[in-house]
Amino acid sequence: MIEQLFKPKSIAVVGASSDTIKVGNILFRNITSSFSGKVYPVNNKSESIDGIAAYKNLKDIKEPVDLVVIAVPRDAVPGVMNDAGAINAGAAIIITSGFKETDQHGAELEEQIMSIAKAHKIRVLGPNTIGIITPEVNATFAFADVKKGRVAIVAQSGGLGVYMLNWAQQSNVGISYFISLGNQADVDETDSFQFLSSNVETRAIFSYIEGVSSGQKFLSTLPDITRRKPIIFLKGGMGKTGAAAVKTHTGSVAGSMDIFRAAVRTVGGIFVDNIEDMLNLAKIVLSAEPISEDILIVTNSGGHGVLTTDAIDREGLNEIELPESVKHDLLNVIPAQSTPRNPVDLSGDADYKRYNSALDIVKDLDCTKIVIVQSLPMVTCSDVARAIMNYRGKGVIGVTMGLDQNSASKLLDSVSIPAFIFPEDAVRSIKYMANRPNPIKKIRTIEPINQAKELVKGKNYIKDFEAMKLMEIYGIKTPAYAIAENAQDAKSRADDIGYPLVMKISPDTPVHKTDVKGVIMNVEKDMVESSFNELNYSRVIMQAQITGAEIFVGGINDPVFGPSIVVGIGGIYMEVIKSLSYGICPVSEDEAYQMIRESKILSMLTSRNRDYDINSTVRTISKISNMLIDLNIKEMDINPLIVNEKGAFAVDVRIIL
Amino acid sequence: MIEQLFKPKSIAVVGASSDTIKVGNILFRNITSSFSGKVYPVNNKSESIDGIAAYKNLKDIKEPVDLVVIAVPRDAVPGVMNDAGAINAGAAIIITSGFKETDQHGAELEEQIMSIAKAHKIRVLGPNTIGIITPEVNATFAFADVKKGRVAIVAQSGGLGVYMLNWAQQSNVGISYFISLGNQADVDETDSFQFLSSNVETRAIFSYIEGVSSGQKFLSTLPDITRRKPIIFLKGGMGKTGAAAVKTHTGSVAGSMDIFRAAVRTVGGIFVDNIEDMLNLAKIVLSAEPISEDILIVTNSGGHGVLTTDAIDREGLNEIELPESVKHDLLNVIPAQSTPRNPVDLSGDADYKRYNSALDIVKDLDCTKIVIVQSLPMVTCSDVARAIMNYRGKGVIGVTMGLDQNSASKLLDSVSIPAFIFPEDAVRSIKYMANRPNPIKKIRTIEPINQAKELVKGKNYIKDFEAMKLMEIYGIKTPAYAIAENAQDAKSRADDIGYPLVMKISPDTPVHKTDVKGVIMNVEKDMVESSFNELNYSRVIMQAQITGAEIFVGGINDPVFGPSIVVGIGGIYMEVIKSLSYGICPVSEDEAYQMIRESKILSMLTSRNRDYDINSTVRTISKISNMLIDLNIKEMDINPLIVNEKGAFAVDVRIIL
Repeated sequence: MIEQLFKPKSIAVVGASSDTIKVGNILFRNITSSFSGKVYPVNNKSESIDGIAAYKNLKDIKEPVDLVVIAVPRDAVPGVMNDAGAINAGAAIIITSGFKETDQHGAELEEQIMSIAKAHKIRVLGPNTIGIITPEVNATFAFADVKKGRVAIVAQSGGLGVYMLNWAQQSNVGISYFISLGNQADVDETDSFQFLSSNVETRAIFSYIEGVSSGQKFLSTLPDITRRKPIIFLKGGMGKTGAAAVKTHTGSVAGSMDIFRAAVRTVGGIFVDNIEDMLNLAKIVLSAEPISEDILIVTNSGGHGVLTTDAIDREGLNEIELPESVKHDLLNVIPAQSTPRNPVDLSGDADYKRYNSALDIVKDLDCTKIVIVQSLPMVTCSDVARAIMNYRGKGVIGVTMGLDQNSASKLLDSVSIPAFIFPEDAVRSIKYMANRPNPIKKIRTIEPINQAKELVKGKNYIKDFEAMKLMEIYGIKTPAYAIAENAQDAKSRADDIGYPLVMKISPDTPVHKTDVKGVIMNVEKDMVESSFNELNYSRVIMQAQITGAEIFVGGINDPVFGPSIVVGIGGIYMEVIKSLSYGICPVSEDEAYQMIRESKILSMLTSRNRDYDINSTVRTISKISNMLIDLNIKEMDINPLIVNEKGAFAVDVRIIL
Repeated sequence: MIEQLFKPKSIAVVGASSDTIKVGNILFRNITSSFSGKVYPVNNKSESIDGIAAYKNLKDIKEPVDLVVIAVPRDAVPGVMNDAGAINAGAAIIITSGFKETDQHGAELEEQIMSIAKAHKIRVLGPNTIGIITPEVNATFAFADVKKGRVAIVAQSGGLGVYMLNWAQQSNVGISYFISLGNQADVDETDSFQFLSSNVETRAIFSYIEGVSSGQKFLSTLPDITRRKPIIFLKGGMGKTGAAAVKTHTGSVAGSMDIFRAAVRTVGGIFVDNIEDMLNLAKIVLSAEPISEDILIVTNSGGHGVLTTDAIDREGLNEIELPESVKHDLLNVIPAQSTPRNPVDLSGDADYKRYNSALDIVKDLDCTKIVIVQSLPMVTCSDVARAIMNYRGKGVIGVTMGLDQNSASKLLDSVSIPAFIFPEDAVRSIKYMANRPNPIKKIRTIEPINQAKELVKGKNYIKDFEAMKLMEIYGIKTPAYAIAENAQDAKSRADDIGYPLVMKISPDTPVHKTDVKGVIMNVEKDMVESSFNELNYSRVIMQAQITGAEIFVGGINDPVFGPSIVVGIGGIYMEVIKSLSYGICPVSEDEAYQMIRESKILSMLTSRNRDYDINSTVRTISKISNMLIDLNIKEMDINPLIVNEKGAFAVDVRIIL
């Protein structure tokens, strides 16, 4: 049972050792020094470990064992697992490495271990893990005496996990749980999140993830967790080189970065770009200060104010305007000749009293107050920290810069007011928190329209005119079109479409029509016959030539997260500008709107006083996201979807099933 | 003389005070405690200051005074300056604030002071300055006992200057000069850089700048300085809100951010985005380690390796491939079952010896080695720092993460090896240094071609066909064109151009032709007459309709830096994607190449196997940059410049003189 892993009452340590530089010793010492329950060292060569009588074999223990911690050579692990089964242990932590992350033999061993575990219903953490720390026990070979706190750390990399542990140790943060996932042969990130979501000792979860084991489990489980407490994600393997490194690192398959990011947003997680952002964000997450995207700056240095407003601008936050009454009151506080405004510049000779008076005037404004102090002979950072502490709970954040910045930070830390050394870090952290996404639960009902099901049945590739038909079935607009198999056909049907029109070859297999010169644009009435002959193809599709903004809509079936959609600015610049946004299907119209905003499609639809149909665009994206699920589409390109005043029109559609 | 400001032999302090919380006291104490030359306190109310006999008036001092430091109320400053003139002082530092940065009366006072200074040939620092620190004296009201070092700090914001001072104090950096520029009524950033360039006590210059006083002086002086020592720029007022704050802050007019950034690149300066980047970069700048964009990672944590390769990827640096021989040697060092590759993963049980052996194997590779340690029970950060120190000068950089990271950093600091806590910071700093631009001197010879001079003489606006002519004079390609004033004209000239062609109205004043429906595209032979009639305009320009990539080229006469040029992806997405690059005129072909790369025009010219004419594009940009200087053009738009296999063609040109 997973409870026996996370809340064990008794622990056996197999491979416990007396050799103080061995993992088996550090582990055993950490456990015995932290755990108040019963601990059984198991070692087939020693009589006792650190003065505690050792067992030769797990099976020699006659009392109930909840958790077995294993640190023996890899080939000995299956035997230990069998023994664990024999004594009815509920969970195992396999510290040993050298399994699927290493070689074929290791992968086979790991499979063997897992089938033993399943047979005996033993939940397994690892292999290749640093271990686990709970409020009751430190079952890791990291350092001892971990500071207790309210942050849970879930890490797929042991090294980064330990780093986060160190950070929690050094700062005022402290941890509730530390879970090093290792190879995740059984217990994975979602299992851990799920346990932590109802754990009252945990306030927030920080997670370093290199890959998600089950996208479906992740998508369905996390929205309920992030509603209860924040989960912050730092993902490894973001660049292309990084992705290669991940593969060998823990043997996990790194899903596409962009889709992972979209998945995190969907489930309401906070995605951070780097470890420093993560550590900074923790200060905000763990404080009780209300955070808003509206910001007021109070400082004794104009230059610091300038840098901070720059950062606010860059991150898209909002610098508030001061109400007249507040301006009026500030006149009594700021030096003569100064203008009360945001940033409130208290001037270089400001002291504790001036800071305190200014904060008293602005304390009830509904905004986040970044209070910056540059230490000067007139004021220390600690003086100002003490002034800030008078306004705890009023949305205050301290930025202390100067000789005593560290002691000022500690003061603020001690009352859980976020404290930073750089204003840019404060602003970025506020952005992450203020823009925290709403969790969305993806319900993937597969309910294909009958007509559509018929149309795609048994096909791998959908021909162009069939794709047009499919669009119509789903209520997606297409330009007027017709099929012609000879010049006479073409001439007679062209009139119905109207001019100018586009004539394109209509092949039975996927072909890039432009590449084979299979497209003629600007066809007027008198050119239809000659154009047909020029194309010299058995079947030709004719389409009304429409103008507008060109958008790209793509569909993919991600190996981890399933049907996903990408939209972007299309046309000839597509590959150059890569202005894209990803979503997990199904995508609601609201989500589609966020996507066209993120990808700058929205700007394109509205720039130069254009009045292109935004509603039709988001509706189309949402419909396509449903189609991707319904028809189990493997790959799909709509390139372009042309949007003008009359709507969004699918002009060229490629579908692979 | 400026030497009397930067290397004074005697100093008078006007406004010296005995009241320990007053600026006049802190200043006086800082000077007397640091300076070995003669110091004269001047105070019209006190007999003595801190036990030193005070003078009622500057004129009472009968010995020579190099530098007068002034901290009296603003209205008293002109009188003091007159006295300084009377005793032949060479320089003055005006600490007092409340001048042009405050109000009209202050601005008038500042003017009055400067005319006195000029009359007496007194060089002035300030007003509204914190003061100056030199290797011989601390003439500021910041803190005393400044750590001596090799970094000069030049700051337009007192607060940020003091912050940089604090940073230098706390780290191992130490400073040679600290110059708080204040309002720059006389001595400005370039004067300061110039003095520091030949100052042997200074190795690098760090500068916080909110505006440049004279763009021309900056452009002509700095390339020679950056060739001798690095200048790092942090500019305030980057966002729009920030820009407003600057205006009132020191009364300087913030030039356009993008052009300032281009100017810094041109003169070979390093432009950093924020103060944290600046402080991190200092570690690299001040070390003697060779820095390259090729990077090798050595670590004991796979996760840290992943994050670092991610950062390398993001910043566009290069992760090297290990030579076979090195891989072979590493096999003796890394754990069995591991693969030798970059990142070199020494594994969690690596100790000092393993780090040292690995570094010994890779030490002679021509690359920067980022050595990362995650402290674990097997190894401390300090252990690894000691291993790194064995390879000083081999391009080593330490990233120490964990419990003793600070002491490890200090160890590395003590031998000037760059030390970081976050791998991302290390990578960013390497990028800044490895991509440091070559200084380019802008020679602005104004040599307009006679024909061009004739063409623009006396005009404010250049008509479209005149602009085409101007392009030809400068050797810039245009599509074949002709002017028609009646339908008959049009018909007879269209044949010479060829079909299809574009017909556009040709007005005498600047008009957005598309907005007034003054453009007809795709005109075939039989449509010329009807199109002319449809335009219904007294003069029409006909152009060959060419296709290709659409580029935007703009010219501006920047109030600070003069003629400047901007290029970007053109067409309908221009405003949406804003993929731009700026340059200071004249722009060489090499610079133009960098600009089209930065703006992604280059990707556009080469994507999808296009073979569009890159040479013609850069040549055109370079020629236009010369034209902007020659003809003193105020504003110019080429939109679009169409580039295809045959060259770059100026299609639509607007010029305002």
